Amino acid sequence: MKNTFGNNITLTLFGESHGDEIGAVLDGVSPGVPVDMDYIRRELNKRKPHGCISTSRTEEDDFRFISGVFNGKTSGTPITVIIKNKEQNSSDYASSSDIPRPSHADLTAHIKYKGFEDPRGGGHFSGRLTAPIVALCAILKRDLEDKGIFIGSHILRIGGIQDKHFSDDKNELLCEIKNMSDSLFPTLDCGTNKKMIDLIKETANEKDSVGGILETAVTGLPIGLGEPFFDSVESLISHAVFSVPSVKGIEFGSGFAFAEMKGSEANDQYAVIGNEITNATNRNGGINGGITNSSPLIFRTAIKPTPSISLPQRSFSYTDMTEKELIIKGRHDPCIVHRARAVIEAVTALVLTNLFAENR
Amino acid sequence: MKNTFGNNITLTLFGESHGDEIGAVLDGVSPGVPVDMDYIRRELNKRKPHGCISTSRTEEDDFRFISGVFNGKTSGTPITVIIKNKEQNSSDYASSSDIPRPSHADLTAHIKYKGFEDPRGGGHFSGRLTAPIVALCAILKRDLEDKGIFIGSHILRIGGIQDKHFSDDKNELLCEIKNMSDSLFPTLDCGTNKKMIDLIKETANEKDSVGGILETAVTGLPIGLGEPFFDSVESLISHAVFSVPSVKGIEFGSGFAFAEMKGSEANDQYAVIGNEITNATNRNGGINGGITNSSPLIFRTAIKPTPSISLPQRSFSYTDMTEKELIIKGRHDPCIVHRARAVIEAVTALVLTNLFAENR
Amino acid sequence: MKNTFGNNITLTLFGESHGDEIGAVLDGVSPGVPVDMDYIRRELNKRKPHGCISTSRTEEDDFRFISGVFNGKTSGTPITVIIKNKEQNSSDYASSSDIPRPSHADLTAHIKYKGFEDPRGGGHFSGRLTAPIVALCAILKRDLEDKGIFIGSHILRIGGIQDKHFSDDKNELLCEIKNMSDSLFPTLDCGTNKKMIDLIKETANEKDSVGGILETAVTGLPIGLGEPFFDSVESLISHAVFSVPSVKGIEFGSGFAFAEMKGSEANDQYAVIGNEITNATNRNGGINGGITNSSPLIFRTAIKPTPSISLPQRSFSYTDMTEKELIIKGRHDPCIVHRARAVIEAVTALVLTNLFAENR
Amino acid sequence: MKNTFGNNITLTLFGESHGDEIGAVLDGVSPGVPVDMDYIRRELNKRKPHGCISTSRTEEDDFRFISGVFNGKTSGTPITVIIKNKEQNSSDYASSSDIPRPSHADLTAHIKYKGFEDPRGGGHFSGRLTAPIVALCAILKRDLEDKGIFIGSHILRIGGIQDKHFSDDKNELLCEIKNMSDSLFPTLDCGTNKKMIDLIKETANEKDSVGGILETAVTGLPIGLGEPFFDSVESLISHAVFSVPSVKGIEFGSGFAFAEMKGSEANDQYAVIGNEITNATNRNGGINGGITNSSPLIFRTAIKPTPSISLPQRSFSYTDMTEKELIIKGRHDPCIVHRARAVIEAVTALVLTNLFAENR
Repeated sequence: MKNTFGNNITLTLFGESHGDEIGAVLDGVSPGVPVDMDYIRRELNKRKPHGCISTSRTEEDDFRFISGVFNGKTSGTPITVIIKNKEQNSSDYASSSDIPRPSHADLTAHIKYKGFEDPRGGGHFSGRLTAPIVALCAILKRDLEDKGIFIGSHILRIGGIQDKHFSDDKNELLCEIKNMSDSLFPTLDCGTNKKMIDLIKETANEKDSVGGILETAVTGLPIGLGEPFFDSVESLISHAVFSVPSVKGIEFGSGFAFAEMKGSEANDQYAVIGNEITNATNRNGGINGGITNSSPLIFRTAIKPTPSISLPQRSFSYTDMTEKELIIKGRHDPCIVHRARAVIEAVTALVLTNLFAENR
Repeated sequence: MKNTFGNNITLTLFGESHGDEIGAVLDGVSPGVPVDMDYIRRELNKRKPHGCISTSRTEEDDFRFISGVFNGKTSGTPITVIIKNKEQNSSDYASSSDIPRPSHADLTAHIKYKGFEDPRGGGHFSGRLTAPIVALCAILKRDLEDKGIFIGSHILRIGGIQDKHFSDDKNELLCEIKNMSDSLFPTLDCGTNKKMIDLIKETANEKDSVGGILETAVTGLPIGLGEPFFDSVESLISHAVFSVPSVKGIEFGSGFAFAEMKGSEANDQYAVIGNEITNATNRNGGINGGITNSSPLIFRTAIKPTPSISLPQRSFSYTDMTEKELIIKGRHDPCIVHRARAVIEAVTALVLTNLFAENR
Repeated sequence: MKNTFGNNITLTLFGESHGDEIGAVLDGVSPGVPVDMDYIRRELNKRKPHGCISTSRTEEDDFRFISGVFNGKTSGTPITVIIKNKEQNSSDYASSSDIPRPSHADLTAHIKYKGFEDPRGGGHFSGRLTAPIVALCAILKRDLEDKGIFIGSHILRIGGIQDKHFSDDKNELLCEIKNMSDSLFPTLDCGTNKKMIDLIKETANEKDSVGGILETAVTGLPIGLGEPFFDSVESLISHAVFSVPSVKGIEFGSGFAFAEMKGSEANDQYAVIGNEITNATNRNGGINGGITNSSPLIFRTAIKPTPSISLPQRSFSYTDMTEKELIIKGRHDPCIVHRARAVIEAVTALVLTNLFAENR
Repeated sequence: MKNTFGNNITLTLFGESHGDEIGAVLDGVSPGVPVDMDYIRRELNKRKPHGCISTSRTEEDDFRFISGVFNGKTSGTPITVIIKNKEQNSSDYASSSDIPRPSHADLTAHIKYKGFEDPRGGGHFSGRLTAPIVALCAILKRDLEDKGIFIGSHILRIGGIQDKHFSDDKNELLCEIKNMSDSLFPTLDCGTNKKMIDLIKETANEKDSVGGILETAVTGLPIGLGEPFFDSVESLISHAVFSVPSVKGIEFGSGFAFAEMKGSEANDQYAVIGNEITNATNRNGGINGGITNSSPLIFRTAIKPTPSISLPQRSFSYTDMTEKELIIKGRHDPCIVHRARAVIEAVTALVLTNLFAENR
């Protein structure tokens, strides 16, 4: 399926970093869902580079829907968003197109596509392609909110600086999600926020980049979403999340910490409070046997440092197959953890809407 | 797609823990691939419970192929394996069918399937269903070996006990994979092995269970497998691996450790040695931009402690919706990390064979 | 997807004519649907060879469900049916395995599978494989009946003998469907019935076979099933129906007769009767723009004469690549039109259940 | 999958008749395939309305590729074509948007999409959406020609006027295909051509429309394309062809004429000529057991008269649910058989390219 994802609600992605336009098609959305342009713009804004901690490439994200939207609502037919590529400073990249950038897709794409790929700015592999994903999935994310389902994330870690974890309390968690909803650099702890931004600036000055971890939560899910084995909630969310460039790890609930736990610590035992069955703890991150259990869905995503750094690196030339020193020019993000957050929330909305469709 | 996985080579899984038989269908395999019964039995053997560190339920794994195999080779049509369920000690489970086991799929399945599910022994959600996956994928795994591609894993951690990591050297890594190939409890360090087994025994005596981490490597992959965005190698492998019961985390290459790295440390710079382009390091675990880069594919999987423990736990009764203490009787694994390894390698073979088919 | 069909409710088919068992897996069926063994047996009975107008091979269709059925109802997990192959008289076929039968899949399969295919009795291409399709889809067909949706067919033509068409009146049509429901050789006109059977007997005596046309109707469908373009009702039904061996044509509503019509004759104009919108005519066979319009769904299927005839035919030998006369021994159907009917109704139920699932 | 078709090479369609733009995405095409703009324009030209026998709506088909094409060749990533909608004379349609046009999708779409659909000009259901299909599939069709595979069609029938059939001789057939390749109204018999066009003009004068039959042939296919059962060549081609608006029937080889044949007449017996195995006849239309047999692929498609006619018709008003006379204004095709031909050849190229991909 390559550039298409989803069983019932399918997203098909297309475009290249330096083409005229990029875009995506979302098929299978119910008719009559509001298409809230302000909401979409807000989501895109979170993905956009901002100020001193991002690339100076100004991405206007001048998007338009060319199908599937009628009188401000979804019409039931495929929804297509098109985003113009405005500032393609190809000359920045042209100089290095003979020299693949380390840890980028330059070489792997070059071999895979036998040299026919558009190499400018990473071509189809550019992080820029996540913008239409965010634009389309914003429709789904807002629709989930109308149904009482809220998706939120915070920056758990940048380099050595760690934020606190999401609250274990459902109501507090919902507050945390809503409070951070409009933040461009969401952390739970205020002090952490400044420290992380300082670290990113410092890293930028060193012509380097830095990685981090996002923690994402979803509240309001019913019991019963997800399928046994191949369409488990973990399977589908990880599939979608690893589509986001630079993601290299994911864990649900206690995740890797389960390795050091005993079953007696790891199990979420049941409690009956009033008439309601509840789990006293949420070590399984809201999922049992691949199926949602009504506790908040919790997962963490590891994001590697952006591979585009201005420090000199060792690479080679396709032409003469000898080693070359590469200094990547142009505008680069010293950190994309905060920007990746909008994309990870977008694909989470896509997976959840699919699971609802499958579960009807 | 629920119980079917794979774009080109599809595996469809069926059965319940206490039905007469379980099985799976593998479609799309090329005709003429050897079906090596000894090899399949060896892979199944790794998944089987063994001795004091496993459940005492003796699973004979008495499998037979009822389609798609002719004269010892694949015929090109769907391959179906059927495995008899011999020792279904339903009475062990019957007593507790009114009381869902914490952190099992009991409750989530009960709600999802509106009470029509077969609850005996976890029904369709039983780890037992991974046996037909292992049996069928053994055909693919062996075929990959014929093509010079070797998949291997070791137990990196059980509770607090840590094994050393796979070697960074390709040739040594291949040796490590081959050396551990027949081991039922593979570790790189010999001393670690005994310590881990002792810990598992001890945990069993405490009527508890313990989790761990598997590290998996694949050598011999060419450049160019995997697709941009939604069918990235990470996306497909994580999708498949999270289908394996009890998996709660996955990371590729440096994974979560990327969070604390700088780009200058994280990037795998290129070197030209002789006529060959190579990466001096392999922090990306053999994948750039979602596509294999010819370095070994490396990933780690977090496996939670088995939720079936004999210690008393808090749960509730469906009938009267009041809290109940649950003591799970029957035979349980104090640890399934070593058994999960066979399944994780099996689904890895399934993903890789699909990627080869897609790449042709 | 090869041997799997359906977006939401998927059927995966496996087996070979002369293997021990054949079967199929049906995934995605709602939990709690009755599994009515008598109903299933009745549907299988219609597909079975009968008396003098069929092969003398006695197919017991001794089926069993090995998964997905619990306490007489679907459990929500994959339903697997297994049917034993009892009377495989391989010696009949063995003699000719070096000589491909004209208009069979013998040669095309032999080239496609590079000689690794199981050639006995047509292997995977045998009409025998339609039995598990009928068995599983009987669950769906009966469930549709519970919802007021009835699928029925009659034999419109065998050789030169033509039955009358289904009634244009909805209520009469429903009577016709119900009346023929248990008939093993359904025609609307009684006299036609005997003439057709006589023709088949005569053809059998001539060691030849004969083709025909089935007319199928579905009543009770709501407006709105089907998707624009690629998942039109016609697209999905034709996809499924051409999976049935020997089908070579399909037409909906007036079908090929549209070629000679004017728009003013072809259009189904609207009438308002009481409060209900209705179509005075049903030339479009219940489908407009690929979507059901609440008129009965009507289609006709052309079925070629069975290619297995006992008359001498020209073929060749794989071994020495010279022409050979072939006389096919064994038991053959002089006509399969009446037997194909059960399969066509089965796959129609599969498509409709999928469309309902997609439409929710 | 709704608006997406194809297992390996997938086409996703989007747009509405009166939106700003329509388009489609083609994913999975090999890198390095030439994108021949003249060829694409020629294919689009065949689909375009022409002169007195078509609607006077001038469709410029001003298409542009916004992704997946680099330096005149496919790059391996998704190819997106966008076509501007220039002459949307919405006022023609607006008047009747409250009154559904008989035998159009107006009512079925209105119910399916709960009134949220874009009704202007048929919205997403407009035949206009076939233009991007033709544009993208022209890349595949030309690539098949480079591989020696030629797809061609002629108008077998318009109303009561019948053309002769394709030649049974492979070489002559190839000549016929090539000769008609650039014709906008292809018939094999010259006299027939004028008679058909006269009939269409006459029908237009009567404010009516007329249907017809296309005969399509493909030469140069190898043995072995297609899969048993659900992905038979007939299944896939019919699935795609019924996606084309107004198609109501399809038959392969002798098709419905098989009903009156004996097996001894219907079977294509083998002959050995020189070293080559061949079929003396081609009644199966190049397909045995769902798999290509190296004889030309032959199928016929029934196309109903365009439902948009200017004669008064009976319909009703959504607003007050009473019967209304409808006179459709605007520009309409009295016949679309010749225009449908480009689309049917396009989707045939899509299916065949998929089958080649699946067969590798």
